[in-house]
Amino acid sequence: MKRGTLLVVSGFSGAGKGTVLSKVLEKRTDLYYSVSFTTRAPRTGEQDGVNYHFVTREAFQERIDRGEFLEYAEYVGNFYGTSMAVIREKLDQGVDVILEIESQGAAKVRQKMPEAVSLFLVPPSFEELSRRLHGRGTDSEEVIQRRLATARKEAKELEHYDYIVINDTIENAVGEILAILVAEGCRKERRLELFKGV
Amino acid sequence: MKRGTLLVVSGFSGAGKGTVLSKVLEKRTDLYYSVSFTTRAPRTGEQDGVNYHFVTREAFQERIDRGEFLEYAEYVGNFYGTSMAVIREKLDQGVDVILEIESQGAAKVRQKMPEAVSLFLVPPSFEELSRRLHGRGTDSEEVIQRRLATARKEAKELEHYDYIVINDTIENAVGEILAILVAEGCRKERRLELFKGV
Repeated sequence: MKRGTLLVVSGFSGAGKGTVLSKVLEKRTDLYYSVSFTTRAPRTGEQDGVNYHFVTREAFQERIDRGEFLEYAEYVGNFYGTSMAVIREKLDQGVDVILEIESQGAAKVRQKMPEAVSLFLVPPSFEELSRRLHGRGTDSEEVIQRRLATARKEAKELEHYDYIVINDTIENAVGEILAILVAEGCRKERRLELFKGV
Repeated sequence: MKRGTLLVVSGFSGAGKGTVLSKVLEKRTDLYYSVSFTTRAPRTGEQDGVNYHFVTREAFQERIDRGEFLEYAEYVGNFYGTSMAVIREKLDQGVDVILEIESQGAAKVRQKMPEAVSLFLVPPSFEELSRRLHGRGTDSEEVIQRRLATARKEAKELEHYDYIVINDTIENAVGEILAILVAEGCRKERRLELFKGV
């Protein structure tokens, strides 16, 4: 059985991860999207168990104590964590898994699962990122400035990712992510056994 | 200017490289297909300057003496060689280049240009390869057996390639190669400068 690809997806806040990934999942209904746990409040339209498992700080701490998380991290005052068992099961079944996670978490996943493939979603420029965060109209100027400061820090993490996907248009970004998944499935490591011992 | 990707393509004789690559070039008219020099006789339908530069052994030897070739090799009694200047020029212009070459030549290219990306085209199985070579009806049984022996040797080279593309249907193989080209264009090495110093 061919093992699935674990695709770790990070991106600047405001780069459009949510929109792009939902389109990717529409095109590739065989993918498994790993749902993270978080202590942050749901945004308008977000559903428990779909976008995140929304839990209290106490419930999150219990899961930490039980050693359930592949990784967890605090980010802008809230906790985010990834449960490992389901991911491993899907990969073993040959299913490709998408794990959306910020850069600290991505670093931990890379450490524990070196075979993971990682990509970082960016807008075409830093100026465009600032413009998009302001245009979204959901955050205060203070929050926006905090997000931009975080983005500047995260830009230093880009070099640890395998791929950088540019969200100039949603269609292009989706196309690049789909191509990365296909290409990773063609890596020789996954196919060498086909012609072993001929 | 973003540098182009050099995609080195090898494959078992009979795997369908010619058909698959011509479809890839139809879909991506911006690609440059590197035309090799050879001393072998043209097959039916092959054109000088399109499929190969067909030259005499003497002319080939002169080019060797002038140091023109990135690589050259003898294969089933004929010489094949790749001129380097044009490839470098295209890559510098940001054009992706496809270089079709057998595995000895691919090894030399990898050595001289470590940034090259390489893929090996295979049929779904070794049995299918034998069936296709017989079905083609262009070669004698002796030639087919020689090609199969070569394929067995080449199977040992598979591990040196980045990707293995399976030609089960032409459409799938073409799709995989197009995806590899897109994905390689997204590699962080090519895009890191976008967010340098923000």
